[in-house]
Amino acid sequence: MPSLTHLLFTNLQQDALFAAPVQLACMLRVEAALAKAEAAAGVIPAAAADVIAAVCRETEWDEEALAQQTLLAGNPAIPLVKALTQRVARRDAEAAKYVHFGATSQDVLDTALMLQLQTALHWLDAQQFQLYEHLAALANRHRNTPMMGRTLLQQARPITFGYKVASWLDGLLRAQERLAQVHAEALVLQFGGAVGTLATLGEQGPAVTAQLARELQLPVPLLPWHGQRDRLVDVATALAILCGLLGKMAHDVVLLMQTEVGELREGAAPGKGGSSAMPHKRNPVAATFLTAIAGRTPALVSTLLTGLSQHEHERAAGAWHAEWDVLPELCSLTAAALTHAIDLISGLEVDTERMQRNLALTQGLVFAEDITVALTPHLGKAAAHELIEKASQEAPRQGRHLQDYLFDEPVVRQHLSAEQLAAVFDPARATGLSQHFTDAVLARFHALVSPA
Amino acid sequence: MPSLTHLLFTNLQQDALFAAPVQLACMLRVEAALAKAEAAAGVIPAAAADVIAAVCRETEWDEEALAQQTLLAGNPAIPLVKALTQRVARRDAEAAKYVHFGATSQDVLDTALMLQLQTALHWLDAQQFQLYEHLAALANRHRNTPMMGRTLLQQARPITFGYKVASWLDGLLRAQERLAQVHAEALVLQFGGAVGTLATLGEQGPAVTAQLARELQLPVPLLPWHGQRDRLVDVATALAILCGLLGKMAHDVVLLMQTEVGELREGAAPGKGGSSAMPHKRNPVAATFLTAIAGRTPALVSTLLTGLSQHEHERAAGAWHAEWDVLPELCSLTAAALTHAIDLISGLEVDTERMQRNLALTQGLVFAEDITVALTPHLGKAAAHELIEKASQEAPRQGRHLQDYLFDEPVVRQHLSAEQLAAVFDPARATGLSQHFTDAVLARFHALVSPA
Amino acid sequence: MPSLTHLLFTNLQQDALFAAPVQLACMLRVEAALAKAEAAAGVIPAAAADVIAAVCRETEWDEEALAQQTLLAGNPAIPLVKALTQRVARRDAEAAKYVHFGATSQDVLDTALMLQLQTALHWLDAQQFQLYEHLAALANRHRNTPMMGRTLLQQARPITFGYKVASWLDGLLRAQERLAQVHAEALVLQFGGAVGTLATLGEQGPAVTAQLARELQLPVPLLPWHGQRDRLVDVATALAILCGLLGKMAHDVVLLMQTEVGELREGAAPGKGGSSAMPHKRNPVAATFLTAIAGRTPALVSTLLTGLSQHEHERAAGAWHAEWDVLPELCSLTAAALTHAIDLISGLEVDTERMQRNLALTQGLVFAEDITVALTPHLGKAAAHELIEKASQEAPRQGRHLQDYLFDEPVVRQHLSAEQLAAVFDPARATGLSQHFTDAVLARFHALVSPA
Amino acid sequence: MPSLTHLLFTNLQQDALFAAPVQLACMLRVEAALAKAEAAAGVIPAAAADVIAAVCRETEWDEEALAQQTLLAGNPAIPLVKALTQRVARRDAEAAKYVHFGATSQDVLDTALMLQLQTALHWLDAQQFQLYEHLAALANRHRNTPMMGRTLLQQARPITFGYKVASWLDGLLRAQERLAQVHAEALVLQFGGAVGTLATLGEQGPAVTAQLARELQLPVPLLPWHGQRDRLVDVATALAILCGLLGKMAHDVVLLMQTEVGELREGAAPGKGGSSAMPHKRNPVAATFLTAIAGRTPALVSTLLTGLSQHEHERAAGAWHAEWDVLPELCSLTAAALTHAIDLISGLEVDTERMQRNLALTQGLVFAEDITVALTPHLGKAAAHELIEKASQEAPRQGRHLQDYLFDEPVVRQHLSAEQLAAVFDPARATGLSQHFTDAVLARFHALVSPA
Repeated sequence: MPSLTHLLFTNLQQDALFAAPVQLACMLRVEAALAKAEAAAGVIPAAAADVIAAVCRETEWDEEALAQQTLLAGNPAIPLVKALTQRVARRDAEAAKYVHFGATSQDVLDTALMLQLQTALHWLDAQQFQLYEHLAALANRHRNTPMMGRTLLQQARPITFGYKVASWLDGLLRAQERLAQVHAEALVLQFGGAVGTLATLGEQGPAVTAQLARELQLPVPLLPWHGQRDRLVDVATALAILCGLLGKMAHDVVLLMQTEVGELREGAAPGKGGSSAMPHKRNPVAATFLTAIAGRTPALVSTLLTGLSQHEHERAAGAWHAEWDVLPELCSLTAAALTHAIDLISGLEVDTERMQRNLALTQGLVFAEDITVALTPHLGKAAAHELIEKASQEAPRQGRHLQDYLFDEPVVRQHLSAEQLAAVFDPARATGLSQHFTDAVLARFHALVSPA
Repeated sequence: MPSLTHLLFTNLQQDALFAAPVQLACMLRVEAALAKAEAAAGVIPAAAADVIAAVCRETEWDEEALAQQTLLAGNPAIPLVKALTQRVARRDAEAAKYVHFGATSQDVLDTALMLQLQTALHWLDAQQFQLYEHLAALANRHRNTPMMGRTLLQQARPITFGYKVASWLDGLLRAQERLAQVHAEALVLQFGGAVGTLATLGEQGPAVTAQLARELQLPVPLLPWHGQRDRLVDVATALAILCGLLGKMAHDVVLLMQTEVGELREGAAPGKGGSSAMPHKRNPVAATFLTAIAGRTPALVSTLLTGLSQHEHERAAGAWHAEWDVLPELCSLTAAALTHAIDLISGLEVDTERMQRNLALTQGLVFAEDITVALTPHLGKAAAHELIEKASQEAPRQGRHLQDYLFDEPVVRQHLSAEQLAAVFDPARATGLSQHFTDAVLARFHALVSPA
Repeated sequence: MPSLTHLLFTNLQQDALFAAPVQLACMLRVEAALAKAEAAAGVIPAAAADVIAAVCRETEWDEEALAQQTLLAGNPAIPLVKALTQRVARRDAEAAKYVHFGATSQDVLDTALMLQLQTALHWLDAQQFQLYEHLAALANRHRNTPMMGRTLLQQARPITFGYKVASWLDGLLRAQERLAQVHAEALVLQFGGAVGTLATLGEQGPAVTAQLARELQLPVPLLPWHGQRDRLVDVATALAILCGLLGKMAHDVVLLMQTEVGELREGAAPGKGGSSAMPHKRNPVAATFLTAIAGRTPALVSTLLTGLSQHEHERAAGAWHAEWDVLPELCSLTAAALTHAIDLISGLEVDTERMQRNLALTQGLVFAEDITVALTPHLGKAAAHELIEKASQEAPRQGRHLQDYLFDEPVVRQHLSAEQLAAVFDPARATGLSQHFTDAVLARFHALVSPA
Repeated sequence: MPSLTHLLFTNLQQDALFAAPVQLACMLRVEAALAKAEAAAGVIPAAAADVIAAVCRETEWDEEALAQQTLLAGNPAIPLVKALTQRVARRDAEAAKYVHFGATSQDVLDTALMLQLQTALHWLDAQQFQLYEHLAALANRHRNTPMMGRTLLQQARPITFGYKVASWLDGLLRAQERLAQVHAEALVLQFGGAVGTLATLGEQGPAVTAQLARELQLPVPLLPWHGQRDRLVDVATALAILCGLLGKMAHDVVLLMQTEVGELREGAAPGKGGSSAMPHKRNPVAATFLTAIAGRTPALVSTLLTGLSQHEHERAAGAWHAEWDVLPELCSLTAAALTHAIDLISGLEVDTERMQRNLALTQGLVFAEDITVALTPHLGKAAAHELIEKASQEAPRQGRHLQDYLFDEPVVRQHLSAEQLAAVFDPARATGLSQHFTDAVLARFHALVSPA
């Protein structure tokens, strides 16, 4: 059993996709498809392909032994091909000649990884939709809920909470599209033989390649890519960007959960978020895990990105191997992040009353720009700015609300009525395009969900 | 003056795109376009916009002072807007009210960065085409030049040098497409005002946004993106992947330039690649710089990727600032890399005779798989494999070429004639789809150059 | 001129230490010392050494040309040695034979870097002392100022502000010691000749090495380290850790400057921290820059750390070159960070009244653990915990202070008098070892300042 | 079961040190020691401490449940303390009050991590000694074996293989010292209570701390370090530097195993290093894994280093959690690297005959500097350099050995006898201080092994 904390950083379903049994099954699926494609192209006898495919469907393999032999062989395809050949030979010695014919270890391992990633990205896509539905509902529910917008962690001007959620969702929908593009374009067949020339297959190379791709439902790349690993960086980056944007969302939630802000709370549950020493605390839990995951994913991208230039010649000694556990780890972390995010957003408690109180915290100072704008046509920008700058210092010194203070300023009253002045200080009026933008994001989300 | 080595890591033209004068010019272009767009939407008087735009066309600004004031103000937009307002006021006090109206510092700085990146990516694209033309020519010239393919840095099987170059080009063409996509999709207008709601513009927000985007020829994003920075990560990653693939190419060149391999040499020039102590050496120079750049770029991506989750609320305190010098540095490094790569490839010396000699180095052992395949129909795969495995150990022990050794093996001669045996050991025949793949990449390159 | 923002990320004095003139001067210092050491060991004529040393003292060199020639030569030592030899030859053709005798480019560049780093670290050390004096004074001034301690960004229990500052200082003093150790141990002579064997010097290698080290006042390493670059990683890490801890301090300040917290403010200055649109804001400026720098430094360490394994054989093609601009950039960022930190801490405004108000914000809930502890001897831990957990939910629901609420709880009053109850809710009493720890750190700082 | 490749990147013994059972045992050890220390200081009853300590010695805990509860609670200390309290209560309700008294979750988890790291570093130290013994023996065995030194991957000048190995060992011995220092200084007690002030313990805080440290045999830090995480970065960096230097060694081995170089080979074993398609290959296996590990470790350091500035206030929401699995992963990767390195070095096959042949590969060109030096006293440096530069181009053009070519140069024969000329071209003579440096490293190693 791994550490007591490992569950925070993985998702068991996602994890299973990269564990030995599924990895092995994908490798066998590649070997079976290869035999069939080669038989279809007349490169190997159809009977041999049938036997090979039949053995590849067997389910009892000694994964422990394969893992051990990998330590000596250098990669798991070598012992697997050996074991596979032995089993085939037991059924049909002739067929055994054609196991793994014309392929290299990296063909099998890379293509198997593509199949694993397909399932993984499919799963992650479904999780994303689930999360984004929660976010869309939350944004919609709070499209008119005014709250303070904050820049450089200072109160700035009002927004709506719906708009804040829509901003998160806007980025996340791009993350989803990026992953969809990666799914469609970066997950391609790997098939080149020893040095990427398919030399063993003679003239039949392209035909076998095309058929193999059809069998596995993977796109055919222009060239084998044993040493050109940019597509994997695309996968990794798309995952890490998703985690980063989830981390940004979580970061905002943690900040809004601060005792002194108190606008959000993670949903309560028995045993959740408590502090062993401080019963009153309502600690962020899911948001904390999300932040932690966002802190770990960039490093994994860095490993792949740095590796790009380290792939030597036709197939690398080390840079390839460094990729093996990194992409699965990234998928696992992303899956965990989505689980935490769904947990966080689906249970999020919004304290709209506290949002109101926080809007009032500066006693009108956050409307300084609005009142400046309102006075500019009358006083000119410079004079308006100066007047309000001074008032913004003086009013708090006197413990007064800026609106009250300005009510007593003759130069203000000369140009603005009490009603006009009050309108300027109304948070709901000051949220600008918050609803407009919220609706735009919701429309985009709904277009994605039901594209036609 | 920077260090004696700074020229290796930059390109002066590219560098200039991010230096104060161009940065300032872009910021002023944004301010001018903003005024015009607001006038067009009736938000500010047309006369004011004209004055603002006229002042923005002025070219004498005290950049040194602006840089100094940035240290206090927190960003360069604040002192610039101040200086701009003062100049406008000198011409027309009324117009001064409308400088930077409704915008926030980050609107100006982000949008200016987009304009700078547009020029930078455009320049990098042109450099890429220049490089890729050299590569295409090189691949074409050597499409039939046999050389040894190497895996895990061991001699494996023959390829052609044209195929090797085509493999580099294949990845690099993807890098170019990635950058083109980023250029088209990630470089978008930033315009949201203080908290991304354009509150100051009232109903006119969308109209001003649309007009501003038209003025600057930038796409309009669904939402302001002050705190959702994934697009910048896309830009950074696309640049770093290009550098990584250039580094892979350079890495291959460095390995092929090894004294013991000697298949490639960088073009000679007076003062180039010499060693102060060893006159006989022909050191890699451009390839070395490329490798160094590929070693530096991943870290810069990491900074942006890590920053994603650090953007707090509506605009960040620190994560935004951390981006400022990083993207320019990435562009500079990429520009330097392309310059070195053009230098490297355009002058590359190919020693085809040495390639021939290296093909013969193992005395036929690299054709072990071919001869195994040739014998398999006669002996079965297992027996053929075993025979050749043994021969592969025995022949070198006796100092003999594998072909000669096998010529004396009765079981071989029983099935293969001398001609058939010789054909198996002919490198030119063994390069498989090398030409096929080379042609595929060349066709793709030519399709990109002349799309219709 | 670089970008308008470059001043935020550098310090001009520190920058100058790595600019061409100082770099060149250090290289010439190494060449001069080498000639003298070789003369002292009888390897070259004393007269030749005198001429070489004299020319090395010349100050007019064409740095621009040297930088250009570096692009061809591969490193700046090659053109410098050439230029130096020409000048020496003009004075004394015989002496010209002995320029750079037995050395390799990397000897000169690495050793020059060590000399540059010595000055840089010395300068950074002085800046650190200045900062730490401000921190020590601040910690001392507020050793009894109660404020809320916060964990997971939730109010937890009271500390003193002095203790918080002392915690920052505790880490920073370790950072200073780490840098001092690095200064003493990692900055060593590099001298090995072409492949690290000093073969050209025959028997005199060790003697010349020893004398050269004396001339330059650098320690002699056990072996040349052209390809073993761990010492540079030590330097880089020590710098990045310092920046990271300064970033932690800044991060805390930014959080404490939040409008809703308001316990700290950066010192005001004309033109500082204002927002162009929101006159009331008091934005973090220096703290923001510190956070940005802390976000950029880890990536630079990563470049060096990744490079460790990329150094090939006796001297590397690329991994060495990747180091060149990275260490100077790290020093520059660190220098900038220290400047911002001194600016931040020396002007920091502490709102002790707001700290008091925030202590009262939860209406006594933060003392839940204290009251639980006070009741435990009477009720047992479980019952006490349960009682207080319930009270902590009920009191806020009724809008009451926990102390008042418990005052009316018979089971509490049965065991605690009103005075005892009040004592539990006194923040000053609840700060535990805050003063004790503050004093410990101050004592350590003073011991470092005046070691005896 | 994890992936088929996971064994390459871990060591089962090391892995076990961070798995749930040992982690749990360490946490319980901390809780027991805490109770005892508090009893010794009179803070809690001795009888209670006895019961707590007895329960902490129990071995049956539901780790699966604890891991699940961690997902809700936020960290594993919370459910463990709960479970522990329940068990203690079953024995003695009174004692249950004193479980975890005055401590916070992070005290327990950080201190448990220190105990785990102590064992891990101890184990890694023993492995290092084993590896270094192999390296010392190898260096000693080949202290006089000439081979070509290479710079920028070009043949440069001769060294001995012993010197090359000694260079690896030199860096690795520093890595070991760095880890020893980290072991002694960075692994310290964590004990501060909720906000680092030990407020619950009143006056007894320091006494309990001292006693707790004695119980656990850990040094007492000046202050609790919940938010100042530089020591962990020190641990991580020391591990990653070790991996990087092992990677450098492996990188050299891979390069020397190239078919065209052929000076080294990994030890043969059944099933090892074979290629499925190319029976003649002798692939690097252990060296490949080492390279892969060196490619993965820097990223993990980056996570911790970046985290430094993300720790908020007294205890962090996310940056702490991001550390949890990273340090164990680093230890596991390092342990795997050492295992591979021992495997690699203990079985390394050295082809001294091939080293000789490679020394002769340039037909004397690599002695160009030697002959230049030999002629300098007679011709002056410039003339000698020019003569040899020309000869270095001409001799290969004529297919002649440089020595033969020069033998026919009158100006050479005028100053050097045939014997003198031959001596210059003798590799053994040209290895400079190779033996001297090898001996220096061996002496240092032996001093470390038997310090007195």
